[in-house]
Amino acid sequence: MIKFYYHPSPNPAKVALYLEESGLPYELVPVDTRKGEQHELAFRAINPNAKTPALVDGDVTVFDSNAILLYLAEKAGKFLPANTPEARGPMYSWLMFVATGIGPYSGQAVHFKNFAPEPKDYAVNRYDFEAWRHWSIIDAQLAKHRYMLGDQYTLVDMAVWGWARAIPFVLGAEAWEKLPHVKRLLDEINARPAAQRAEALKARHAFKTEMDDDAREALFPQNARLVA
Amino acid sequence: MIKFYYHPSPNPAKVALYLEESGLPYELVPVDTRKGEQHELAFRAINPNAKTPALVDGDVTVFDSNAILLYLAEKAGKFLPANTPEARGPMYSWLMFVATGIGPYSGQAVHFKNFAPEPKDYAVNRYDFEAWRHWSIIDAQLAKHRYMLGDQYTLVDMAVWGWARAIPFVLGAEAWEKLPHVKRLLDEINARPAAQRAEALKARHAFKTEMDDDAREALFPQNARLVA
Repeated sequence: MIKFYYHPSPNPAKVALYLEESGLPYELVPVDTRKGEQHELAFRAINPNAKTPALVDGDVTVFDSNAILLYLAEKAGKFLPANTPEARGPMYSWLMFVATGIGPYSGQAVHFKNFAPEPKDYAVNRYDFEAWRHWSIIDAQLAKHRYMLGDQYTLVDMAVWGWARAIPFVLGAEAWEKLPHVKRLLDEINARPAAQRAEALKARHAFKTEMDDDAREALFPQNARLVA
Repeated sequence: MIKFYYHPSPNPAKVALYLEESGLPYELVPVDTRKGEQHELAFRAINPNAKTPALVDGDVTVFDSNAILLYLAEKAGKFLPANTPEARGPMYSWLMFVATGIGPYSGQAVHFKNFAPEPKDYAVNRYDFEAWRHWSIIDAQLAKHRYMLGDQYTLVDMAVWGWARAIPFVLGAEAWEKLPHVKRLLDEINARPAAQRAEALKARHAFKTEMDDDAREALFPQNARLVA
């Protein structure tokens, strides 16, 4: 059975949603990143990048949430667009837009707004601007189409959903006023039973919630060099 | 014929290499990003993210270098691993590691080291550390295998090559001492005729090289908010 290495944060959420939507059987393996479990050798043998999510399916190991979406979509044969160049070109483009833009810039915006020390005006502006710019491009796409690739709900919508849930935290409480189409998609997906099952996974394990010194050390290992 | 929207920078280089390796016929369309041509409406209709590379293949539009690699590999049927879950899981994982880690962190390291104003110690440390961490993981993979996915040269090696060429600029002139396996792969790919043809593309157009105020405005639009 698939082993799904999970923490309740945006990237694992995409995979949780896909697994629940597709009905593929899986076993949940909690990885408590605020306790540093992602750095343990046994986990790094699965994902050398020391991040969640990761997946082990028999002899196959897959890491990175977007890689896992593609892998699972091929395995299940579900939530993919038509197998034509006309459909796969946009599918790869928008999935990579989420993977290389939405995720990294939203993540850096969260880091600098919430966790970096002052002075940080330049970096906060840089990542807030870029996170807004990326989300506005998603909103414009969803203004033209019900789903990211047109009329069909696909793995790209699931990739968007993972981070869309965090938009008020990333961009501020009023962000939905400027991103109404993203909000529409988020609400629609949230109402799906699979999304509710995916959301409920976080209650299955008592994940550490405190952002104390140990958690900061586990999550921001680069900062050890500043202290030294 | 494929139209390849190109600028001589790391991400378009991956696509140039794939096109030259595969022998797919294409037409080069220069996009001079230091002149702001990526922001023109005609180009944003192709890539709403206003970045190079992008590709138009008949009715199909593809953007993001890693998306284009997957698209072209399916089109040409070349430089892909075996079509099995055991081979495609690692292929997606490592391609996404390059797409979401190597590219973003190398790019942010370059930005903060070279273009951001002081004070920037925190951000320079963050991105230098993360760029090193990601490249060290690639080096460890290449210590175990000749190529990123084992014995076969694939699109993942081409994705690595795009940014590996820039390592001295990203990490410093002595970086190769600590990344000998990445250097070995870079040298091997550089010696291939396709890589030399890809490298020669930059001479086909007189791209702007000055990093003046207009270029900074075109490349770093987020900074307009700091002045306002």
